[in-house]
Order: sequence, then C-alpha cells, then structure tokens
Amino acid sequence: MSLPSQDHEFLPPYRLLLGPGPSLVHPRVLHALTQPLIGHLDPLFLDLMNDIQTLLRAAFQTNHEFTIALSGTGSAGMEAVIANLIEPGDRALVGVNGVFGTRLAAMVERQGGVPLRIDAPWGNIIPLEAVQEQLARSAPVKAVVLVHAETSTGVRQPLEDVGALCRAHGALLIVDAVTSLGGIPVEVDAWGIDACYSGTQKCLSCPPGLAPLTMSPRAMEAIRRRRTPCHSWYLDLALIAEYWNDRSRAYHHTAPISMLYGLREALRLVQAEGREARFARHRLNSEALLAGLDTLGMRALPSAEHRLPMLTCVTLPDRITDAAVRAQLLQDYGIEIGGGLGPLRGTVWRIGLMGESSRQAHVLTLLGALEEIVVQHGLPVQAGRAVQAAVDIYTGSRSTTRRSA
Amino acid sequence: MSLPSQDHEFLPPYRLLLGPGPSLVHPRVLHALTQPLIGHLDPLFLDLMNDIQTLLRAAFQTNHEFTIALSGTGSAGMEAVIANLIEPGDRALVGVNGVFGTRLAAMVERQGGVPLRIDAPWGNIIPLEAVQEQLARSAPVKAVVLVHAETSTGVRQPLEDVGALCRAHGALLIVDAVTSLGGIPVEVDAWGIDACYSGTQKCLSCPPGLAPLTMSPRAMEAIRRRRTPCHSWYLDLALIAEYWNDRSRAYHHTAPISMLYGLREALRLVQAEGREARFARHRLNSEALLAGLDTLGMRALPSAEHRLPMLTCVTLPDRITDAAVRAQLLQDYGIEIGGGLGPLRGTVWRIGLMGESSRQAHVLTLLGALEEIVVQHGLPVQAGRAVQAAVDIYTGSRSTTRRSA
Repeated sequence: MSLPSQDHEFLPPYRLLLGPGPSLVHPRVLHALTQPLIGHLDPLFLDLMNDIQTLLRAAFQTNHEFTIALSGTGSAGMEAVIANLIEPGDRALVGVNGVFGTRLAAMVERQGGVPLRIDAPWGNIIPLEAVQEQLARSAPVKAVVLVHAETSTGVRQPLEDVGALCRAHGALLIVDAVTSLGGIPVEVDAWGIDACYSGTQKCLSCPPGLAPLTMSPRAMEAIRRRRTPCHSWYLDLALIAEYWNDRSRAYHHTAPISMLYGLREALRLVQAEGREARFARHRLNSEALLAGLDTLGMRALPSAEHRLPMLTCVTLPDRITDAAVRAQLLQDYGIEIGGGLGPLRGTVWRIGLMGESSRQAHVLTLLGALEEIVVQHGLPVQAGRAVQAAVDIYTGSRSTTRRSA
Repeated sequence: MSLPSQDHEFLPPYRLLLGPGPSLVHPRVLHALTQPLIGHLDPLFLDLMNDIQTLLRAAFQTNHEFTIALSGTGSAGMEAVIANLIEPGDRALVGVNGVFGTRLAAMVERQGGVPLRIDAPWGNIIPLEAVQEQLARSAPVKAVVLVHAETSTGVRQPLEDVGALCRAHGALLIVDAVTSLGGIPVEVDAWGIDACYSGTQKCLSCPPGLAPLTMSPRAMEAIRRRRTPCHSWYLDLALIAEYWNDRSRAYHHTAPISMLYGLREALRLVQAEGREARFARHRLNSEALLAGLDTLGMRALPSAEHRLPMLTCVTLPDRITDAAVRAQLLQDYGIEIGGGLGPLRGTVWRIGLMGESSRQAHVLTLLGALEEIVVQHGLPVQAGRAVQAAVDIYTGSRSTTRRSA
C-alpha cells in the first residue's frame, strides 16, 4: 500500500471561516483541547461535567436538570430528540421552510412517526396562525417541531408565543437552536421549550463534535412513559441522563473528553462576554455586512424583521457566478463563505458571522475582497463603496453609543 | 446563577491512564488538535479524509472502499453497524460472554431484530462449534456478531475460521474491534469480516470521539437492499458513504474536524511504528505485567491462549478491597486502572496497556505502586518481588533478542 500524502504532517492554512459553520475558534479553546486526558469516570471529570451543565443552563436560559452535551454533532442532537420523543404512530407538526425542517420531517418518519408538515416558502417564517390551525385540526399532536435559525435561508423563527399554544394542546415544543445559541436570545424556560438542541461549531465557536441539549421535565416524562424502547441505544436519553446525573453517574459510553475540555472553555468565553454584549456584537456586524453587500447588489433573502444576524443569506446579482467567485475567495483570500442548498443552490450565498467569526475586521476584509472580485467580473460597482458603507455603520454605532452614554 | 468552579481554567492533573480506555495520547496527537479549523467541505479537508481512509485501511488490513471514521465514539460504531445491517425480523447470532456482547444483543433487539444468543461464561471465548451448530440450526441468519476483544473480561475471541463459516451459511460477519485495533492483528480481508468497527481511545491512542469503521461490498449491498429505511439518519451509512466517497462528497453532517486532525496523526504514529513492532510491544509489556501481578496473588481471568495483551483482567486476592485500593492508586500515585463490570464488579481489575500506555516504565511504576499498597493492606508479599518479576521478563526478552539477532 503506498502512503504518499500521509508521510507528512497535516498543516492546514489559515482560513477566515465566514460560512455557515464551523466558525473560528478562540486560541484558548484550542489550547484546552491539549490538556492531558483523564478518565471519563475520574472524580475530576465528573466535576467538569457539572461545570458544563451549569454553563449550558446559562446559555439556554433554563433550569432544566437534563442539560448536557451529547457525544455527536448538532445532527446527533436533532436525531436524539426526535428518536426519544417520537414513537411509532405519533403525530408531529413540523415547520418546513428550509433544509433543516425538511430533515426533521424525514427523521420523524424514520422513527415511525407521522410528520404533519407546515410548509412555507424558503426565506419565510412558519406563521404562528398556521401552527395554531394545524394543532386545532390534527389533535392529538405529540410535538411541534420548529427551527429557530434556519441555516439554509437565514430566517429567524419567532418562538415567543408557541410554547403556550403547545401546552394548550398537550403538545411538546421541540426547537432546533443549532445556529442561534450564543448569537441571539434562546430562552428555553421563558418560551416554554421542551427539547432544545444546538451544535458547538456555530455561535459557541468550539470545534464541531458535540451537541448541547436540554430537555424539560415534561419531555423526560414522555421518554419514561414510552410504549416502545427507543430504537437508538447510543442516543437513548434515559440512559444518558443516568451518566450525567451526579447522583448516579452510571457508565454509558466513553465521553469525548478532549472535546468537552474545549466546550467548557468556549462556554466560559461566552459567559465572560455577557449575553447582551454578545448579541449586540452579532447584530452590529451583520448590519454592517449587509450595508456593504447592498452596494454590490446583494439583498437579504428574509425580511428585515426575521433576518438572522449570524447567518446572512443574500441573493446574487445576475452577473455573479456563484462557484467561481467562492473558489476565488477561498484561493486568493483564504476566505470561506457558503453557497446555497437545495432549491437555492447557485442563487444565494450564506455568509456566517458566528461567535469568533463575527468581528468588524472580518466584515471589512470580506467586503474588500468581494469588491475586488466583482469588479474583476465586470460588475458596475464603485471600488471602495462596500467597505465604506460598512464603516459608516460602525461609525454611526459609535456615535450613537456616545450620545446615549 | 452562581458559577463558582467555572471561574477558573480547567487544569487536569497528569494521570497515568492504565484503565480500559482512554489510553495516554502522544503529544503530537494533542498538538494536531490545535491546528486551525478549515471547513468540512474545503478541498484540503477532503484530502485529509482521503488520508484517513488510506491509513485506516492499513490498520484494518482491508481494501474495502467504505473505510471511514464515524462521528461518534466506539458505541456509535457498534450502533451504526447494527442499525444499518439488522432490519425488523432479521435474525442475528450474537456471542455473549461479557458486557459488549450483551449490549450488541440489546441493540439487535432495539432494531426489531431477533438476537440468537450464544452465551459463554465471562472470561471464556465463544466456541467455533457453538457458532457452527447455531448457524446450521437457525437458518436463515442475517449476521453473526462477535466481540474480538471483550473489554469487560480481557478475552481474545479467535476469528480466523468464522468468516468462511458465515459465507457458507449466507450470513454477514460483524466484529467489534474497539479494543483490539492497533494492539493485536485485526485482519478484516483475510478473515472475511463484513463489518468491523473500533474506537479511537484504546490502542490507537487518540482521544475518544470517533469510531473507525469498515464495511465490505457485501455489507454495503445488504444496506442498499434494505426493505425498510434505517431508523437512524445520523448513522445512515448509505448517506455517510456519499460524503466520504471522493466522487460525490455529498454533505451529510459537519464532521468533527479537530478530532479528525488528531486521528490522522495518531494513525501516522501507528504506521510509523510498524505492525509487528507494535504488536510485540503490547505482548511483552503485558507478559511483564502479569508476571509481576502473579507475585501479588493476582491471576488472569482468561486462559493463557485467549488472553488480550492490551487489557489484563485479573482476579483479586481475598484481602484486597477493590474500590479502596483503586482510589488510593488514583489519589497517591495518579494511576487509573479499571474495576470489574456487571457480575465481575468488586472481584477483578482491568488493567489497560493500550497504545501509548503500553510502556515498560508504566508497567514498573504500576507494579511498584501496587506492591506498596498491598503491603500497607497487610498482604504477605515480599517488597520488590513484583517489580523484579517484570524486570526479569524484560531482561529475558532482551537476551532472547540478542541470541536470535
């Protein structure tokens, strides 16, 4: 067997990660990964698990006891919630307005559940009235499933009033917060969310590999009352609860120790910055980015009211060829942005300003690079305008801050 | 919310990891974890995936195209194989002689399959004749499932002749190589194994979080011919094959990028040492350990013929109190060893000499510490004898090497 390329160390170049995730990771988090390993049943490791639970409860704004980091990526979090809460024959109302709603409906089906889809055009939200109407029409419904931040379209789903509606109809509320957690408010308790999962490689700015997850007592009760065992042993949350519960600590599987070191440090950084400051930073950088993109003829797909600050999905002007420009950005500038998925392939870009990636310097760098490239591609744009538009936003924000201070 | 212990950095102490995993990790592997992240669809990342596939094929001794690292721990590898190959109603013959065989039978059941258990006492192997007999009696059998290295008992299951038997009966051969891969020969092609999974935190000496996995064309064909969709989307190997296949690279989920950096480096270290040298190192250190333990009245649970070199399971003399001695080892010496599981709780120890943990220095350190502790506990042992017995093995080995050189 010839092993040519493995003969040398893998030394990846520095990439400015401005796609839909992974985001940039703070050096303190990378450093935490190199701490010496201790056993997954070591008393000190159990302390670390407790720390992570406390920090995750703060991030999710919840008091739910079952708040953990699952040993898989965000998609494993999605599957764990569906596989544990949806039994054969259960009806689940699923909002489908992008890739991740589509995937959730497919997962409900794989568990033998019946997905009742509420479809909305990609780029739109799922209207509360449609949820209300379907809930009334389709009783009994086991769960309502909504994507808070649809990473394929950049849409923010309003959630403030869904929890009460679900409770009124005896349904659980399941929320995908993969892209939102750590970038915009996710209020698990205030909004009455029963199951909420996220990923580490978006606004938490940790490498991918873990899924933060919180479950309400109602959701855990639904698991205890299952008529059939969960198909998954690896993601069986009743068993996993016994490992994370510091009264039992029953061995389930070997936790991804180094990744948990990293997550603890990433959550400490989130905590240290403070919620309001972090959310404001994500909003401001997104506003500046969009002002710059606007001068290049790129418009946000979602309406202003429902636009995500950490994931800007813009439609492309006719003369921009998607793949060619993204390849040039990567090759000449080392900048990664994301293309469109599914029906949006080739017609939109998805630019992520998540966690450590959401910085003024990155916005200005990206806009400068884009200006240069679109001028080369013959678009009639005036060099310097995009960066200037962003700078104006930052300047305005500083003077506003001064005035209000 | 008060966050006392999270206010400071997590600085784990150095532990000498001589339990059933995780094992010690080489500094080069820890360093690889800190490389800057690149996107999971970046052309350079796809090169890295190719490298890992090539290195894993060498580790598994296979040419199977589907040879990957799954985004979960070894237990996720176990679940992926069972969930993809066992459909409702399928009969699977499962060898049960420890914790992991028991878990496999439970997983078959969760998929709606029918586990036909071949039970053997913990510490014994599953006899080939029993497999043969059951296969003949229970046709049709979809798969035979065996644990190569039973981590709960230290038993090595012989596998050389099972593959041909399975083929003769039209059954797939599924093998758990979580603890064996990288420490003793695992010959996927020569032994006719159709599905083989492992973990990273045992003899590969990488942090936990990934499951190396290889599937034969027959196994992939069985997946393509499924009558029902796999319950799991996250572990659906037909979809995962499309991401790892360098002709399609269809996005499935965000790969655990940093962990894959680490695995590539760990596999390079395995490759550099060479198979025979690595296996010989594991054998020698295990022999020395057992010689020392023998002087303390501790005997291997499995027969000499079927004893695993990387996991030594020994029965304890009457006067040794399991938990107290292990706690003292951890607290006074920073050494972790494992206790017994299930029916063996309190009566055996499981000492791991896996990958980087399998070193002469660690064997001598552990024996010295144990001697000291058992003397304190009043056992009539002569100080220095255990270490001397191990040293004799090392000396003998060196003179043998000299004579044969």
